[in-house]
Amino acid sequence: MHPSGGALSVPPGFRFHPTDEELLYYYLRKKVAYEAIDLDVIREIDLNKLEPWDLKDRCRIGTGPQNEWYFFSHKDKKYPTGTRTNRATTAGFWKATGRDKAIFLGSGARRIGMRKTLVFYVGRAPHGKKTDWIMHEYRLDEDNVEVQVGRWLGGV
Amino acid sequence: MHPSGGALSVPPGFRFHPTDEELLYYYLRKKVAYEAIDLDVIREIDLNKLEPWDLKDRCRIGTGPQNEWYFFSHKDKKYPTGTRTNRATTAGFWKATGRDKAIFLGSGARRIGMRKTLVFYVGRAPHGKKTDWIMHEYRLDEDNVEVQVGRWLGGV
Repeated sequence: MHPSGGALSVPPGFRFHPTDEELLYYYLRKKVAYEAIDLDVIREIDLNKLEPWDLKDRCRIGTGPQNEWYFFSHKDKKYPTGTRTNRATTAGFWKATGRDKAIFLGSGARRIGMRKTLVFYVGRAPHGKKTDWIMHEYRLDEDNVEVQVGRWLGGV
Repeated sequence: MHPSGGALSVPPGFRFHPTDEELLYYYLRKKVAYEAIDLDVIREIDLNKLEPWDLKDRCRIGTGPQNEWYFFSHKDKKYPTGTRTNRATTAGFWKATGRDKAIFLGSGARRIGMRKTLVFYVGRAPHGKKTDWIMHEYRLDEDNVEVQVGRWLGGV
């Protein structure tokens, strides 16, 4: 239930289409600080246990049309002592593509975080088969932040 | 103010992107019945007194990016005794294009209204100059409904 007493919902016609800045500076920043989020629409998931095609139901917001899905996930290290992130699922793996994009606050010069783009491959590296599933992974420019927020963009 | 006591707003990241059905069956139906609308984001305007390029400020919702603008308007008859609608402004006029689209409820067979597409021309008919401003005008399949809801789509 929402603090106001109503259901966890917004009026008809509203869709969740946050900007990069809103995702990082409102949702992820509150999440890592354990602050209350006005409307807690972003689900926490285990990225290594969920295939991209399973998330449409898991990260559903309301009943309207939806072509982007949002989630919080904890970083899973590939090796206990290393810094590399494990992005494998049962069916495949996420692989970074292109360059990370810096996210700035407002129109100002203050950088608050980065956005990484990843593509899902079915199979095991280096023999995976590329799919249409794209993910944006956002991380804050703060120390020791182990939680990330992500956006899944369609796919077939 | 919202009945809950908060400001007229939704949490960060939410944008107003209603479906045809939501516009007609929730917003317009409540408007013509004088029922309360959860979050009264659709402004009432006089379509004949407002140029399309003036509406970005008038029909603003929140502070996020916006490329569609919504409004309620009363039908202005061209002639007191006729049925034709006056869609002229000071600078030009709106002209219907294409075929009206029937809007159905859910996936069912019940038709609830129609959507008309119009293009804005600068000048006076028949010599107007076509622009990129597009409008969708929605009307309910009910008797004597003089209020319509519209959606403006970009333009330059």
